[in-house]
Amino acid sequence: MAPGTIIDENLALSNGHTKDDSVSPTYTEDEQAVRCVRKLLIDIVRQNGGGHGGSAIGMAPLGVALWRHTMRYNPSNPAWFDRDRFVLSNGHAAMFLYTMLHLTGYPHMTLDELKMYANPKAVDSATGKWKSTICHGHPEIEVPGIEVTTGPLGQGVANAVGLAIASKQLAAKFNRADHVLIQSRIYCTTGDGCLQEGVAQEAMAIAGHLGLDNLVLCYDNNAVTCDGPLEWIVSEDTNAKVRALGWNVIDVFNGDASVTDIVAGLKLASSTKGRPTMVNIRTTIGYGTSTAGTFKSHHGTYSDDDAGLYAEPEDREPHRISQIGRTYLDATKDGKNTEDSWKSRLTRYTEKYPEDAQALHDRMRGVHDYKSVLDSIKVPQDILATRQFNGMVAGGADLWNSNQLGDQSSRIFDANNQTGQVIRYGIREHAMASISNGIAAYHPGSFIPITATFFMFYLYAAAGVRMGALSNLKVIHIATHDSIGEGQNGPTHQPVELDSLFRAMPNMLYIRPADAEEVVGAWDVALSSEGHSVMISLARDPAAIKMEATDRKKAAHGGYVVVENAEAVVTLISCGSELQFAVQAASELSASHKIATRVVSMPSIRLFEQQSEAYQDEVLGNAPHVISVEAYIATVWARFCTASIAMDSFGYSGGGAANFARFGLDTAGVVRKVKAHVQGSQSTKRSRWTLLQ
Amino acid sequence: MAPGTIIDENLALSNGHTKDDSVSPTYTEDEQAVRCVRKLLIDIVRQNGGGHGGSAIGMAPLGVALWRHTMRYNPSNPAWFDRDRFVLSNGHAAMFLYTMLHLTGYPHMTLDELKMYANPKAVDSATGKWKSTICHGHPEIEVPGIEVTTGPLGQGVANAVGLAIASKQLAAKFNRADHVLIQSRIYCTTGDGCLQEGVAQEAMAIAGHLGLDNLVLCYDNNAVTCDGPLEWIVSEDTNAKVRALGWNVIDVFNGDASVTDIVAGLKLASSTKGRPTMVNIRTTIGYGTSTAGTFKSHHGTYSDDDAGLYAEPEDREPHRISQIGRTYLDATKDGKNTEDSWKSRLTRYTEKYPEDAQALHDRMRGVHDYKSVLDSIKVPQDILATRQFNGMVAGGADLWNSNQLGDQSSRIFDANNQTGQVIRYGIREHAMASISNGIAAYHPGSFIPITATFFMFYLYAAAGVRMGALSNLKVIHIATHDSIGEGQNGPTHQPVELDSLFRAMPNMLYIRPADAEEVVGAWDVALSSEGHSVMISLARDPAAIKMEATDRKKAAHGGYVVVENAEAVVTLISCGSELQFAVQAASELSASHKIATRVVSMPSIRLFEQQSEAYQDEVLGNAPHVISVEAYIATVWARFCTASIAMDSFGYSGGGAANFARFGLDTAGVVRKVKAHVQGSQSTKRSRWTLLQ
Repeated sequence: MAPGTIIDENLALSNGHTKDDSVSPTYTEDEQAVRCVRKLLIDIVRQNGGGHGGSAIGMAPLGVALWRHTMRYNPSNPAWFDRDRFVLSNGHAAMFLYTMLHLTGYPHMTLDELKMYANPKAVDSATGKWKSTICHGHPEIEVPGIEVTTGPLGQGVANAVGLAIASKQLAAKFNRADHVLIQSRIYCTTGDGCLQEGVAQEAMAIAGHLGLDNLVLCYDNNAVTCDGPLEWIVSEDTNAKVRALGWNVIDVFNGDASVTDIVAGLKLASSTKGRPTMVNIRTTIGYGTSTAGTFKSHHGTYSDDDAGLYAEPEDREPHRISQIGRTYLDATKDGKNTEDSWKSRLTRYTEKYPEDAQALHDRMRGVHDYKSVLDSIKVPQDILATRQFNGMVAGGADLWNSNQLGDQSSRIFDANNQTGQVIRYGIREHAMASISNGIAAYHPGSFIPITATFFMFYLYAAAGVRMGALSNLKVIHIATHDSIGEGQNGPTHQPVELDSLFRAMPNMLYIRPADAEEVVGAWDVALSSEGHSVMISLARDPAAIKMEATDRKKAAHGGYVVVENAEAVVTLISCGSELQFAVQAASELSASHKIATRVVSMPSIRLFEQQSEAYQDEVLGNAPHVISVEAYIATVWARFCTASIAMDSFGYSGGGAANFARFGLDTAGVVRKVKAHVQGSQSTKRSRWTLLQ
Repeated sequence: MAPGTIIDENLALSNGHTKDDSVSPTYTEDEQAVRCVRKLLIDIVRQNGGGHGGSAIGMAPLGVALWRHTMRYNPSNPAWFDRDRFVLSNGHAAMFLYTMLHLTGYPHMTLDELKMYANPKAVDSATGKWKSTICHGHPEIEVPGIEVTTGPLGQGVANAVGLAIASKQLAAKFNRADHVLIQSRIYCTTGDGCLQEGVAQEAMAIAGHLGLDNLVLCYDNNAVTCDGPLEWIVSEDTNAKVRALGWNVIDVFNGDASVTDIVAGLKLASSTKGRPTMVNIRTTIGYGTSTAGTFKSHHGTYSDDDAGLYAEPEDREPHRISQIGRTYLDATKDGKNTEDSWKSRLTRYTEKYPEDAQALHDRMRGVHDYKSVLDSIKVPQDILATRQFNGMVAGGADLWNSNQLGDQSSRIFDANNQTGQVIRYGIREHAMASISNGIAAYHPGSFIPITATFFMFYLYAAAGVRMGALSNLKVIHIATHDSIGEGQNGPTHQPVELDSLFRAMPNMLYIRPADAEEVVGAWDVALSSEGHSVMISLARDPAAIKMEATDRKKAAHGGYVVVENAEAVVTLISCGSELQFAVQAASELSASHKIATRVVSMPSIRLFEQQSEAYQDEVLGNAPHVISVEAYIATVWARFCTASIAMDSFGYSGGGAANFARFGLDTAGVVRKVKAHVQGSQSTKRSRWTLLQ
């Protein structure tokens, strides 16, 4: 592969470095626009003394090719429904995106904001705090014009696959032969870093499998990493690998200088049918500058000589932008025309297909009729595993039979049925989560993605799950086979500590219902709440007893009393599979051991903490011993509890029931530990939280 | 690709299903051995009514090819240093491995143990507990003959890459032209599941890059998954993809029946130079049985007809093993000869190269002279970032410059320098962790793998990190850029909740030192302790003050007093970057606000909890307010603390110092929050742990 480190004389010519300096170069409008982008990037890097400018400079021609010649968008309405979506998977090159948004006319992306990017001087001297900015170190979804939050490498590629799925599904559902309403295409830039990450490779395999021909991956192939030349760490034939995944691959060798070549590549991508396309664009990191082609250009600053490299006489001053650059790239007028034309089509569509139009409007406004579905659910008379119950309302993917999501074969989304609502993600958990983020981000509210796999395998997916929560995206994760009740698969499959991560994660609502009744409550919360992701954690096996006092409405408070006892000296707090043992243990302790015990069901600590202090106090009660019962490492319980009955090791390869017994977490174990603790507690002065043995 | 679902008549013939039942078939010894393996597998699946028999049955010819014709091993000494290593990456097919170990003569792997595999009836009726077994649901490393714990898909492939690196490095270091001592080769089976997982693809890219020609991946290509046919979820050209990664690929189409063909493939792999090999073996899941070629054979049971399928007249009874099968596969004698011959070579080597032999013996016994290295370290006079200090003693990989691991260019391990000790993993965090597990598992103690990346990216690697901890492997992870001090990269790079995972993880020692002095203490603990993995969590920026009281020896206790105050009403507990703020806040609170405050440094909660109760009580002290100060979600602190100063959201894209101020976690913030809490605390009856606002 082209190392991308040598500056070709022809390319240099187009950047004004002629051998004979007396010959004044002439530039095409594209070349002037590219120079304008690069000049602004160098100014900002120099202002800050560093900050990921190199890739952005290398990608400047791609920026002009995309925003000036290829993408459909309207700067005045960044949320226009049918816009093409752009994803910067190489998120550290954020300046590239901010610069293009500024130059194309996104009104909020002002030059003052650009100057704030990674600016160590932008501290409010009075408070010591940084001034706020929309130009974060990596792009963040809350800023108009930014489709997804990227940064951790590989995520953006998977997000782009999700955006492409969303567009395809809407197109298949709403477009009519005579009325094409949905045609948004997805453009995603990537460096070599994303392409090394497993999550991107999983996602690209899925994109190839699904034949997403509305997806274009623009590979900024500059052959340099943060640490040094790419050949230090990569020997693969990337084109061959990507082709093997079912993609079209188009090479562009003159990516440093020829906007025209890149546009041609993008054009060929747009006429590719039945497969996604990667355009492999050879570029030079920090092209033209004194550190071009080296890792020093990755996040270092530029010299005084570099400052003048792309300046015209009129814009030599830092942060000045040449007139031609600005007018040529400004998309305000074209953008408005594009959206207006789409609005006219929507009007005609609405006249001809009023019902479909209504459904589309509902999707655009994020209206989903899930209440009537939920209300119609009757908790089955027989005792079901929480994962079984789930099958009645959820879709998802992977370990389909094990997750018990039911026969959804007629609803599968694939290359031949793009109206399908159910995606088979394969054995690719990380991509599943990150693709779901893309689906949710397409037009927040239009889709409610649901993922499903064993709880343990959400550790594979955790970085993707986190990005969804961080981006305030409503994604619902169905984690089955939780705790040691997972059983015979053994400790590799038993997530004894994973709850600690998801319960600590901001914007993530982890709910662990105890039975079918509480599962309905969990779904109600999951579907009706906004601004965060939700994980519903489900057992492999059904509760062995029917718990009369569980209540879907109360479960929505996070915690509530299921066994009251006015004389209680012990409050047990439990959830999930273990609630049944706590309830039985309380009965036994109260009846046979003279230890009056009450029980709180707490499917969600976070929901409980959102209740009033009075409510919390009432639920937690006045018993001197407050003891949690849960088959996880008890990281989370000490805030409420004086002691915990919990795991303090990995699990074991045994049957579910045998495991609860082995680790003293079944009814007998709870009774034994509570008894020993309560009867022994007078003799110790220790008042801190204790893990009961 | 061959779907693998049709049973070819010739293959059926070799399994006795002739069209004319009157013709008694004759079998080669290999075929008899294969029948013997399959018969035993069916018996055990039938005994249990299920349990991942299908792949094992399909792989039976591969088992005979590997254990009878290819691998060097000694059943009587499973830990023989130069044995070939076998990894079952498709760990759910554990029965395949157990059966082969039994039939080849591993003495502890008895038929009684085999019968215990996933056996729901093997419960001790008195205790309700499962009887213990070494035949866990997935293979576990503590069982002799099992090289690594596998199960979560993809991990084993990466482990195998690590094992191959270990063997290569030892070979390069100790082999002499006239004395070849180290020649262990690594054989790894994989299903399609592992090959879909990102971690395996990352690891395979690294194996190709490093040219590991001692690694053979045996792809059990049965084209069926847990849920259904592979074509539902995979469209890639796997051979082309793997070749693009720099591998040799060899096809074997008659994998259901021809041991000879598989042996030929493995032989060609062993003579491949400079690249790893994948042998793509077409098989049929549950070959020959009534559910052959379908997902029902993945983990379902077999019919009465199936029971007799591979039985000879002599072994019709369940769990009976044919005589020829047993003698032909038994490797006790050959194994002893193989090891004896190696021992003789070692003796001759020791005579000729006594110093090298001594070094090799030290490696075999796990002797490393790190104490003298640690003792020689003087804490620099200038204040260093903990990540800077680290560079003096650690090796690692990825984000090399950012992790500040120093110039290790002469020590790089790659295809051209296999004596190197430093591996460039590229942008492949998950594979880095899982490969490191393989290196550690080669001969536990011989290698101490060290990984390094930003703390945030350990979330990508977490499933691999967990497997190392679960396997009791000594792997040291250097997590730099922890907490919100990471700064300008923003919330995507700021691991505010990730400590909750690693602090909850069993067998994982998470240590967060505050300064260079405590970093030395952390390294001492990490290098001298056994049976678990360690994560050392380091800040991006140096502590801004020099803390006189930090102490490397005391740090090894997990927690100790750094600021004492006999009149204290507040104890602040802190660690990492925030300790400096706690120390300064204590000084200010005591001096200017009449709130006597003491400070505890607690780099490791787990180490602290291992101390005596008396020590813990003394350190925690008697102040009524015990308040943690840490820039993470405060999941872990309530066990010691009455209140916490902590994060309760994701971070922000700002400078490190500005971030601590923004979230009230700098000195001023700590003073303000403590003051408000202490002065306000009389007015509230709330005695539970509180997050201070």
